[in-house]
Amino acid sequence: MSTTETTSKTYHTQMEAARLGIITKEMQTVAEIEHRPVEFIQRYVAEGKIVIPCNKLHTCLKPNGIGSMLKTKINCNLGISRDCKDYDIEMQKVMSAVHLGAEAIMDLSSHGNTEPFRKKLTHECPAMIGTVPVYDAVIHYQRDLSTLSAKDFIDVVRLHAENGVDFVTLHCGINRETIKEIRTGKRKMNLVSRGGSLIFAWMSMTGNENPFYEYYDEILDICREYDVTISLGDACRPGCLADATDQCQIGELLRLGELTERAWKKDVQVMVEGPGHVPMDQIAANMKIEQTICHGAPFYVLGPLVTDIAPGYDHITAAIGGAIAAMNGASFLCYVTPAEHLALPNLEDVKTGIIASKIAAHAADIAKGIPDARTQDDCMADARRKLDWDEQWKYCLDPETAKAIRASRAPEDDHSDTCSMCGKFCAVRSINKALAGEMIDIL
Amino acid sequence: MSTTETTSKTYHTQMEAARLGIITKEMQTVAEIEHRPVEFIQRYVAEGKIVIPCNKLHTCLKPNGIGSMLKTKINCNLGISRDCKDYDIEMQKVMSAVHLGAEAIMDLSSHGNTEPFRKKLTHECPAMIGTVPVYDAVIHYQRDLSTLSAKDFIDVVRLHAENGVDFVTLHCGINRETIKEIRTGKRKMNLVSRGGSLIFAWMSMTGNENPFYEYYDEILDICREYDVTISLGDACRPGCLADATDQCQIGELLRLGELTERAWKKDVQVMVEGPGHVPMDQIAANMKIEQTICHGAPFYVLGPLVTDIAPGYDHITAAIGGAIAAMNGASFLCYVTPAEHLALPNLEDVKTGIIASKIAAHAADIAKGIPDARTQDDCMADARRKLDWDEQWKYCLDPETAKAIRASRAPEDDHSDTCSMCGKFCAVRSINKALAGEMIDIL
Repeated sequence: MSTTETTSKTYHTQMEAARLGIITKEMQTVAEIEHRPVEFIQRYVAEGKIVIPCNKLHTCLKPNGIGSMLKTKINCNLGISRDCKDYDIEMQKVMSAVHLGAEAIMDLSSHGNTEPFRKKLTHECPAMIGTVPVYDAVIHYQRDLSTLSAKDFIDVVRLHAENGVDFVTLHCGINRETIKEIRTGKRKMNLVSRGGSLIFAWMSMTGNENPFYEYYDEILDICREYDVTISLGDACRPGCLADATDQCQIGELLRLGELTERAWKKDVQVMVEGPGHVPMDQIAANMKIEQTICHGAPFYVLGPLVTDIAPGYDHITAAIGGAIAAMNGASFLCYVTPAEHLALPNLEDVKTGIIASKIAAHAADIAKGIPDARTQDDCMADARRKLDWDEQWKYCLDPETAKAIRASRAPEDDHSDTCSMCGKFCAVRSINKALAGEMIDIL
Repeated sequence: MSTTETTSKTYHTQMEAARLGIITKEMQTVAEIEHRPVEFIQRYVAEGKIVIPCNKLHTCLKPNGIGSMLKTKINCNLGISRDCKDYDIEMQKVMSAVHLGAEAIMDLSSHGNTEPFRKKLTHECPAMIGTVPVYDAVIHYQRDLSTLSAKDFIDVVRLHAENGVDFVTLHCGINRETIKEIRTGKRKMNLVSRGGSLIFAWMSMTGNENPFYEYYDEILDICREYDVTISLGDACRPGCLADATDQCQIGELLRLGELTERAWKKDVQVMVEGPGHVPMDQIAANMKIEQTICHGAPFYVLGPLVTDIAPGYDHITAAIGGAIAAMNGASFLCYVTPAEHLALPNLEDVKTGIIASKIAAHAADIAKGIPDARTQDDCMADARRKLDWDEQWKYCLDPETAKAIRASRAPEDDHSDTCSMCGKFCAVRSINKALAGEMIDIL
């Protein structure tokens, strides 16, 4: 029998609460956002099929649920780097991303003093905040990678938890076996995961086992204490179509499945990260395999990019792959910008990347029958039939851009109910007139 | 037994030639482009599953084949309109489109004296040229739509054939039954086909049957004489997700199936046009139904757009739908630009629309196993592993754009083998160093 949360917290994590029959205020918020009964949310949080990443110290968070039966969520990567050190510009990107509808921000800062920016995010930003502690380790200690100890890495995970981070990407799935596999040279692109490559390099230089794999239990204790959701990183995700769904990738996935079960035993919430560069015809199989091997844990995909030859347009290659992935069970899409593979995204790239991801997520939600997903489309269709442009702007994903395109090339004469694409040849106008019994004037 | 074409032409159309066992020079060109035996091309042209649109009078044409077992082709819509009367700008768009890889140009001119521009295209442009004669009828005669006779429409089809047009969109599939169906008010967006709406209006105003349906046999004689491929227009394509795959759309498709067979009896080549706005989960079914009902005639899709709420980004919604459609059997994608639903596309929009369509076509070709489709991707992956940027530009769909993005935000320090996205955190750099036994310098 469920009890609604009152004052005293008698649980560590959302998963533990759900298993104890407690309905938390975060579950209630998620239920409202998703138009689902709260018992539905609670049940799947208990089973691990929905996560609600919400560090207890991120008090300004507007919680969101991630799971394949919920609306597909999107993440936007940002952060300070050597080549973009301006905190104000990064904060502008964050606020723009939240305004455009990103439910999560990953702070991938890799330069300077990272803690103040991270704390600013968890104190001011209502979106879920994620990090990749291994990036931060080198920066935090300001020491060469090879000199860091396993404990140093774990301490950074604790620091991020204390800073209020909601989810952390940990590349726990690679180990010394992976090094052997990569050294066989069967892969075209080896590893393309930034975090994975750092751990690979550290293992190569020190001869030690992956600390995130070896000390996984300690990490679980930290995550349990603060309710940090683990995003199990896919160090072996394919970096090109030729490497997709290979032994290396699936081998890591098998380990991620085991690590998922170990986390669940301690009531720690888990997502699993996925590919990567994948040909379209392999995407559905990838989603299905993740669901079986990782027991329905939410799948967080990085793309997938469906071709390697479109740098400058990888927001489009990722939108194709992301839409297919989400339709087939992925719950969470990491945005990809036009600058992917080429440069740090600027403010415009961030916006374009978010809109492309939102399109993919929304199209998938319609396809998989998420309740009310098509309502906005139906309103848009009604507005279009009426050629009511002010009404159309209300239902646009990005009304500013749409308005600007129409305004920049408005029709020359005064039939302002149409646009310059067709002018008096507008099909909607012709049919409306024909149905009203009016004559059609085209010339 | 096949005979290779020598000097004398003893056939009317490519289909007739193929059926007579003649291998034309157009089939040979297509075989070379596709890396397929010419007998393979001939066989499917004879069966109607491949079309080679090539009007005998379009002598500068570089022929291309369209069929689901060949590389997916793309079309770019252009033309003079009341709101864009500049012939030079339109010709610039044409040459840019061909340079970017569009295999077909549809001239949708709807203003002024259309014949010179059309003839310029068939005399100078190596891409397939398509038109929609019903648009031109009003313009050509400079008379109100309601005053045109059935013969007037057919005469415009003949004029376009004489002008060297390779394929014509004819909305033969709607008839007086369709008017009744639309008047029941079951559809949200009624008809959104420009040509379809003109015929609908003409039928409403005159009380007559659709001339393209009533005089289909005369049209077939014209098309047979010049080898004009008929693109059977889908007047009833859905204009919003809510109308997708409905009775109206599938009813028209059934008539298009009958019209396909009638054309084939006269050796006239046929493509079938398809939707439109379609939720992702209905696309594969649409492709399958077209194949069965229209006996494998190549499917030419307009999108499909997978959501209605992204004006300003419909090149992306169409790339998602087009990629899925092509993977499931569509052969030919009509490009969609960011200006769709809003304004006439400008030169930049045309480029963006073509690249987005090329991405969709290429991703689908890889997914359906078109021979050598992935070669370019594999070369790109090799160049990326080597961090060889000059080599990478060679394999980009749009090297200029990619180069410009990297150059605009180059890494600050001198490790120019990476880009500013990751700088010294570049995974490829780290792994290359680790595999070479080198120390990793991140700070």
